[in-house]
Amino acid sequence: MTDALHPAAVNLSDIDRTARLLADAAREVILPYFRHSGLASENKLAEGFDPVTEADRAAERAMRAILSEQRPQDAILGEEYGSTPGTSGLTWVLDPIDGTRGFISGTPTWGVLIAVSTEAGPIYGMIDQPYIGERFIGAEDRAVVSGPRGEVLLKTRSTRHLSEAIIFTTFPEVGTSEEGGAFRAVCEHVKLTRYGMDCYAYALLAAGQIDLVIEAGLQPYDIHAPIALVEAAGGIVTDWQGGPAHAGGRAIAAANRDIHQKALDVLRASLG
Amino acid sequence: MTDALHPAAVNLSDIDRTARLLADAAREVILPYFRHSGLASENKLAEGFDPVTEADRAAERAMRAILSEQRPQDAILGEEYGSTPGTSGLTWVLDPIDGTRGFISGTPTWGVLIAVSTEAGPIYGMIDQPYIGERFIGAEDRAVVSGPRGEVLLKTRSTRHLSEAIIFTTFPEVGTSEEGGAFRAVCEHVKLTRYGMDCYAYALLAAGQIDLVIEAGLQPYDIHAPIALVEAAGGIVTDWQGGPAHAGGRAIAAANRDIHQKALDVLRASLG
Repeated sequence: MTDALHPAAVNLSDIDRTARLLADAAREVILPYFRHSGLASENKLAEGFDPVTEADRAAERAMRAILSEQRPQDAILGEEYGSTPGTSGLTWVLDPIDGTRGFISGTPTWGVLIAVSTEAGPIYGMIDQPYIGERFIGAEDRAVVSGPRGEVLLKTRSTRHLSEAIIFTTFPEVGTSEEGGAFRAVCEHVKLTRYGMDCYAYALLAAGQIDLVIEAGLQPYDIHAPIALVEAAGGIVTDWQGGPAHAGGRAIAAANRDIHQKALDVLRASLG
Repeated sequence: MTDALHPAAVNLSDIDRTARLLADAAREVILPYFRHSGLASENKLAEGFDPVTEADRAAERAMRAILSEQRPQDAILGEEYGSTPGTSGLTWVLDPIDGTRGFISGTPTWGVLIAVSTEAGPIYGMIDQPYIGERFIGAEDRAVVSGPRGEVLLKTRSTRHLSEAIIFTTFPEVGTSEEGGAFRAVCEHVKLTRYGMDCYAYALLAAGQIDLVIEAGLQPYDIHAPIALVEAAGGIVTDWQGGPAHAGGRAIAAANRDIHQKALDVLRASLG
């Protein structure tokens, strides 16, 4: 747990305990707004459609309040309130409601994303779905979900060929037209392509249900928790060149190295 | 409850009691197969991808066994085992797992569809999501969901303009290329288009979360339960000409008559 990449103070049990408190607080704040008929949303980007609700901001405030009590030495990067510096070398990466379009549509596919990261990338990740009551957690070599069936260990699957693979992304467009073209090039080889699951797709990948998630235009707080979860379950997450994905942008998450390499080859060939 | 369109024997309380037994039986049969790592699926249509699992068939057998005990006078139309004649004028329309592609991907967006219909159309409809534990029921002028929040009355919303509307469909292709073009013509006018929710999209429409669901290539058993649920919650479901939708094919489900008419106008203009 303490190696060259991890600051000396890393204690994953402590991190896990705090992360669960954060997720509990976020659930309590967010759930009253979910499927509320008078939900007000704002357009954060004038040119696009990126609704952000009071729930989003209130949940991040609740999580930051806990961190300032329990982990004042850690830095924070949050979707709503930006960066807060720290001294420990650890950063809490928070997206209170990932999948706001799903949230305002009532779909239980959004999630609270909580990660803890060093400079080298995330070392702990949680995807929490409050309405279903499902909490996916991954760190080191162990990933679990607790939910309707109690606690279940997660393991990605061993699909070897693209022709047997199930691939997910949130929107058919997948970023720029060039990025969308590369995504569709991969889809031509797979068994099934599905849309609309937001961060829940990474949870399904960790749970051994699907094989690939490919996205573009990501922010760091969109992908830190999924990286830690998927890799702890046996998968691999990189950018579209095979390098680290935690800076955001383009990401490919795969159930195993074989299927990752095959999908990466198609993405690269399409991008030229 | 007994008018020219309804056979004299219609007792919605009895129907509701039996329908809940069917859904309970289906849940018990299906859930052990959901997210099971060794799930085997078959291709029912050689040219397409329509997986059907043992769960699908076992659940329909379980539901038919209950009906043969409790409602031997009623007809049955089931996705897996076809038509069984009856003498009452009522038909139970069953789709044990609507959204099999979602099912094999682990998404909690599939549902058990149970409807009771006369020649004129469905008079009772249920969409049951066993993993979340949500049961949406509509008949006459009352629609309710029971689930994580107990029992909640359902009411569609009053959106008046397409520019404020959220639209769902399962696949971006939406049937033939002509049908897909008409769907996309509507999407150009709306606020948000989402994919991948299977029958759960109709439940969200009944719950007042979204405004439109447009689909094509439907079978009767895909749409009977959604029609009854959405209409009991205050919405309207027709084919793309404004006529009855319960024969299958093309369907548009809308939160209210205004938004229905506006979307229908765009569909018709696109189809020429």
